[in-house]
Amino acid sequence: TALRIGMIPADGIGREVLPAAQMAIEALGSAIPKPTFIPLLAGWEEFQKRGKALPDETVQILKNECDGAMFGAVSSPSHKVEGYSSPIVALRKHLDLYANVRPVSSVPGQKVDKIVDMVIVRENTECLYVKREKISDLPNGGKIAIAERQITSTASERIGKMAFEIALRRGQERSESTWEGWAHAQPKVTIIHKSNVLSVTDGLFRESVRKVGEADPRYKGIKIEEQIVDSMVYRLFREPEYFDVCVAPNLYGDIISDGAAALVGSLGLVPSVNAGDDFVMGEPVHGSAPDIEGKNIANPIASIRSAALLLSSLGYYGPAARITSAVDRVLLEGKHMTPDLGGRSTTTDVTEAVLKLI
Amino acid sequence: TALRIGMIPADGIGREVLPAAQMAIEALGSAIPKPTFIPLLAGWEEFQKRGKALPDETVQILKNECDGAMFGAVSSPSHKVEGYSSPIVALRKHLDLYANVRPVSSVPGQKVDKIVDMVIVRENTECLYVKREKISDLPNGGKIAIAERQITSTASERIGKMAFEIALRRGQERSESTWEGWAHAQPKVTIIHKSNVLSVTDGLFRESVRKVGEADPRYKGIKIEEQIVDSMVYRLFREPEYFDVCVAPNLYGDIISDGAAALVGSLGLVPSVNAGDDFVMGEPVHGSAPDIEGKNIANPIASIRSAALLLSSLGYYGPAARITSAVDRVLLEGKHMTPDLGGRSTTTDVTEAVLKLI
Ligand SMILES: CC(C)[C@H](C(=O)O)[C@@H](O)C(=O)O
Ligand SMILES: CC(C)[C@H](C(=O)O)[C@@H](O)C(=O)O
Repeated sequence: TALRIGMIPADGIGREVLPAAQMAIEALGSAIPKPTFIPLLAGWEEFQKRGKALPDETVQILKNECDGAMFGAVSSPSHKVEGYSSPIVALRKHLDLYANVRPVSSVPGQKVDKIVDMVIVRENTECLYVKREKISDLPNGGKIAIAERQITSTASERIGKMAFEIALRRGQERSESTWEGWAHAQPKVTIIHKSNVLSVTDGLFRESVRKVGEADPRYKGIKIEEQIVDSMVYRLFREPEYFDVCVAPNLYGDIISDGAAALVGSLGLVPSVNAGDDFVMGEPVHGSAPDIEGKNIANPIASIRSAALLLSSLGYYGPAARITSAVDRVLLEGKHMTPDLGGRSTTTDVTEAVLKLI
Repeated sequence: TALRIGMIPADGIGREVLPAAQMAIEALGSAIPKPTFIPLLAGWEEFQKRGKALPDETVQILKNECDGAMFGAVSSPSHKVEGYSSPIVALRKHLDLYANVRPVSSVPGQKVDKIVDMVIVRENTECLYVKREKISDLPNGGKIAIAERQITSTASERIGKMAFEIALRRGQERSESTWEGWAHAQPKVTIIHKSNVLSVTDGLFRESVRKVGEADPRYKGIKIEEQIVDSMVYRLFREPEYFDVCVAPNLYGDIISDGAAALVGSLGLVPSVNAGDDFVMGEPVHGSAPDIEGKNIANPIASIRSAALLLSSLGYYGPAARITSAVDRVLLEGKHMTPDLGGRSTTTDVTEAVLKLI
């Protein structure tokens, strides 16, 4: 059998870092089924060329011919453009990739601002991302715009389940670890919300997630906590080591994961998978970074790590771990670092350094 | 003439820090008209006692008898409670306090993580805070909740104007400063939004604010920039020194200001004023902190600084500056610090140290 992976570089540095993910997967050789990579179109540039940010063909091929996918990054127009809509948001919806799982951790031993070892589990299909917006005229000559924020118990429960499963697995991994500090750390799920203002929508999110955690006896060992989104950002910076798994509605998850990325040294390090029950798509958390585009200095690590997340989501745990530990060793060594980490290496250098260790 | 100030301690440490604000104002003696302080009720505890989080009487007295007010902090119920609604959100609405101005800066010379000197100008009346939420049943037995997020050009323009005025004033202050590094720093307004997803609502916010900045020739010297809210949180942590005035819709402003507070050492340091065209209310940015309530260790500085902001909003610049510099000196000296700043002083100690220097 073969492994068919759709590759959607999209815009900007997405195109420079996605090849690194591909090479990392290829470097695994016979450890995984022979991979085929299917290049697919999407993005702001694609919109400018042919009028569609997400061609139907891309979605069809992903659905019918691919086992998984990798997404690069998208640029956004600097003003409202008729007919343009973010292709990554649309892809998540079309493929029902309801969870965006973003592990953020500092490499043990690496010099970083703070020790972080957390996973942000972001709901990926609703909240303000349903994009139901309208605008109309006010009697005073001004305008009024309304957006709907949707939270359902169904979506909140399934993202809750994902969070508790991840916490369970992390708890097991830690208890099997030989490192003393870890062996006793109780797994923890922190529910992020703003129910002191949004008592109905965020109230529903918080209660749905909590119910999942309390109902299933398998989750009994997991501590359930809550944190209001504003104080979450505060606490994330003051004591990030406190957090284990955090589960959040779409927008809060988006914001929190960028915050967490700042703590581990660079957005260029943080991977994610967009996961549904039938499909998985790896995606670095960083954007298309037009300011450094074309310079071969984008950090390929977020993309390479996203490939590892993709593989482990597909069940190839061992091969995924080979990629991950190669990345960790390169970071620990500190010789091959792109400018975002204070180094002078190129995208190519860092990629090669990782490939050598896979 | 007298100065009548409504005092609304509300819940938790709000009650412990508000007296410090009062004493700081009293310590100014004849530098200001004789102040009268009118104690007013509101809060979660008040709701539990008498069924109203914000008694009508409180609003009436503020409107009819007060020149300004100070608010402490509110607790929130840990689950949805019928009829309860946040009194601070309601107060901002009733008094049309459309701007929440939150200056966050490190004291020159003080040991902090990063140098910060910014003002967050948060829109205070709309966004998801309009609290139009509903919930209904889904065919699958689940529930669907919808919240409306409102952005109007009118509210966005007036908060934009506030931001540009503040930037202008800061620019002037800096150009009059004798410190070389400051003399040439161009004032800057950063518009925070998420228009790559919310192209209609955040599109309207961004364009309305920008228009205000571009239309008035007085603002010609102010640089206008934009930052998507997630990358704003990232950048805030990486290079906070970059930012001057940031203007944001309600929720983003709420989140960003907690993030900025983390950078200056403690939420216990960050003041705010809720400002409208006719009324001003000082309010520390921190919450009611039930975990440290009643221990006399809450940091009174955010509250004292909020009193100074209130006074300068009422036109008493000189007296306000006396309070502010007394606080700065106490912080610089570093002898009287509450536990949030790593010290062992009590609320009373710190308050007394400040009072002595006013
Ligand atoms: C590009 C944008 C639509 C996207 C999002 O908000 O989800 C990005 O910030 C991300 O986190 O993947
Ligand atoms: C208590 C809460 C309603 C409030 C808000 O979100 O505005 C608080 O976080 C604040 O920033 O003043």
